[in-house]
Amino acid sequence: MKLGLLQMVILLLKLLFVMILAQKELFMSRFFSDTVKSIRPYVPGEQPKDRRFIKLNTNENPYPASPAVIEAIRSVTGLEARLYPDPEVAALRYTLADYYGLAMNQVFVGNGSDEVLAMAFPAFFNRTDTIAFPDITYSFYPVYAAMYEIPSLIVPLEEDFTINFDAYPDTLKGFLLANPNAPTGIAVTAAKIEGLLQFHSDTLLIVDEAYVDFGAESVVSLTSNYDNLLVVQTMSKARSLAGLRVGMAFGAPELIKGLECIRDSFNSYTLDIVAQRAAKAAYEDVTYFETTRQAIIATRDRTVADLRELGMTVRPSSANFVFCTLPGVAGEEVQQYLRDNGVLVRRFAMERIQDWLRITIGLDEEMDEVIRLLQLLALQKS
Amino acid sequence: MKLGLLQMVILLLKLLFVMILAQKELFMSRFFSDTVKSIRPYVPGEQPKDRRFIKLNTNENPYPASPAVIEAIRSVTGLEARLYPDPEVAALRYTLADYYGLAMNQVFVGNGSDEVLAMAFPAFFNRTDTIAFPDITYSFYPVYAAMYEIPSLIVPLEEDFTINFDAYPDTLKGFLLANPNAPTGIAVTAAKIEGLLQFHSDTLLIVDEAYVDFGAESVVSLTSNYDNLLVVQTMSKARSLAGLRVGMAFGAPELIKGLECIRDSFNSYTLDIVAQRAAKAAYEDVTYFETTRQAIIATRDRTVADLRELGMTVRPSSANFVFCTLPGVAGEEVQQYLRDNGVLVRRFAMERIQDWLRITIGLDEEMDEVIRLLQLLALQKS
Repeated sequence: MKLGLLQMVILLLKLLFVMILAQKELFMSRFFSDTVKSIRPYVPGEQPKDRRFIKLNTNENPYPASPAVIEAIRSVTGLEARLYPDPEVAALRYTLADYYGLAMNQVFVGNGSDEVLAMAFPAFFNRTDTIAFPDITYSFYPVYAAMYEIPSLIVPLEEDFTINFDAYPDTLKGFLLANPNAPTGIAVTAAKIEGLLQFHSDTLLIVDEAYVDFGAESVVSLTSNYDNLLVVQTMSKARSLAGLRVGMAFGAPELIKGLECIRDSFNSYTLDIVAQRAAKAAYEDVTYFETTRQAIIATRDRTVADLRELGMTVRPSSANFVFCTLPGVAGEEVQQYLRDNGVLVRRFAMERIQDWLRITIGLDEEMDEVIRLLQLLALQKS
Repeated sequence: MKLGLLQMVILLLKLLFVMILAQKELFMSRFFSDTVKSIRPYVPGEQPKDRRFIKLNTNENPYPASPAVIEAIRSVTGLEARLYPDPEVAALRYTLADYYGLAMNQVFVGNGSDEVLAMAFPAFFNRTDTIAFPDITYSFYPVYAAMYEIPSLIVPLEEDFTINFDAYPDTLKGFLLANPNAPTGIAVTAAKIEGLLQFHSDTLLIVDEAYVDFGAESVVSLTSNYDNLLVVQTMSKARSLAGLRVGMAFGAPELIKGLECIRDSFNSYTLDIVAQRAAKAAYEDVTYFETTRQAIIATRDRTVADLRELGMTVRPSSANFVFCTLPGVAGEEVQQYLRDNGVLVRRFAMERIQDWLRITIGLDEEMDEVIRLLQLLALQKS
């Protein structure tokens, strides 16, 4: 039997397909649940271990944690480490409540704001409810929805990446709103959110304020007036504590009870003693927080101007990152070019934004290098 | 209108009832999910903040964490704290793999073994599966089952609190076995577990070895031979690291993949940089581990003898706690008597074991005090 070229190619392709399947089989267990079989987990930004990069891909703070935080970490003794942490995290929650003018029972803390969000889904949503969020937003929301099987209405952003609030029906059980939004950096006002709370009075509005300290208006204080508002924040960004994993939620006492119920059905002690103490110290050092966040805001504002100057399209940012695109050049190419030159930035493989880059605001000298590289590329391409 | 005494009492009772209802209403949100409405969370042992107790209620290690651990904690810098931790936790997993003679892809780590267990349920069990565990075992298992709606077969222990393995059908999707069991302290042999793996070849056997280092046989090495075995351990007990929240699972690479899939759909970075580093140091300090665990075993063995001497019934213990009862005296009374005299112990409000106390093995002088108090009580009651 003689095979034609086409037949051979088809045969090779079939073989390749079988090999790929076998590869996947290698990591398939007969014990996998339907959830594991069907879900596509969140993929965090790369944390390189070897080569030194200018790392602008995960929105970390370029400034070190406050010296007071390091002092708090070092205060932990061997006799303290042997004991379980305070499951109520009272000292930290008291500090947070005091900072925001709330009562302690309006404050929840978790092992990063991802964990807080992961607990909010099963606390407030059933598999028969519908929740909604934009098509372009924090890419963990659809993963949580899939994991807990909560039907989701994905509402496209406008052409300019702003949110079309009229497209959200008033029959939702939940509405997730990142403010400022990620990866766009675009913020909405507190007045706008208060209007939403009134219009969507039977909807739980979860406002994710991960980046709020870089220029958006927080609605934490509204949690005392609206029982349908849960505000989620993190210490990973403005408090330089990504390595310590502390997130929090603010809301009416009964919403906090709901989160506690899920937490206590999952893991009684989510925050270790070091993280509890470090986070408290971070919130108490207001001067350091104000100084570093103002520095980041200043660097961001001049970075936006410089990027526009060299020909990039940049969305207005209220966050510690900028969302931008170089017209006429594929996002993948720009990202690879930067990587080849020692700079990591983040890109999301979604059709609408595949040519956009999310660039974290680093130190001034780091941004100088990014701008220099992008100027060179823009010149080459023009 | 003149009210009789009975009528007044009834009126007061009604008023009280309405007040209690209102109190409960205060913490009900219209946004609670069905899960929150129906679940009864796990209740951890008390962590007293004020008065100094001899604290023998949560199976903490009486010895401080190793000095190497404290050194590791103190090595964390402000510039490290600003960055996200390694999501793969490679350095710690490498150390653990090396310690147990496994490959790194056979090791999973989480924010305490409770989190590891909480992730194992959705990774491997569906709402249409059946899993099984004893009626008297770690009381978090039924909470996980309820939270993820996994039907459970609860199999009573024998009269002497040993496990009746013949009562477990071979059609189970999962079988949870704490070894040694909690709160009984009774262990089964590795040979027995290997027999189970063969008999229940289509069942995922999850062996919870939280207390294994105090005298039971670990089956970690069997994970290389059986794809239906997941072994869960913790650093909270024998490694004196309850405050740092580190747990781990060992299993076939595909089982570890399943856990990673759930973790990455829940919270990408569950272990902070301090915990990763501290846990690594704890495992590397083998001498300290051996010395402290042998000391605890010695204290336990003479405590068991002393308790029996004073008239208590004590189960054989392979853990860092003893399970005991004073015949003829209610467990609640013994617990309250100890508490009044400055000693906290744990008791579970389940009919079969309500008169039994779980007493953690503390320092020798702490056990001396407990035995002195119980001798006095036994004398009073005899």
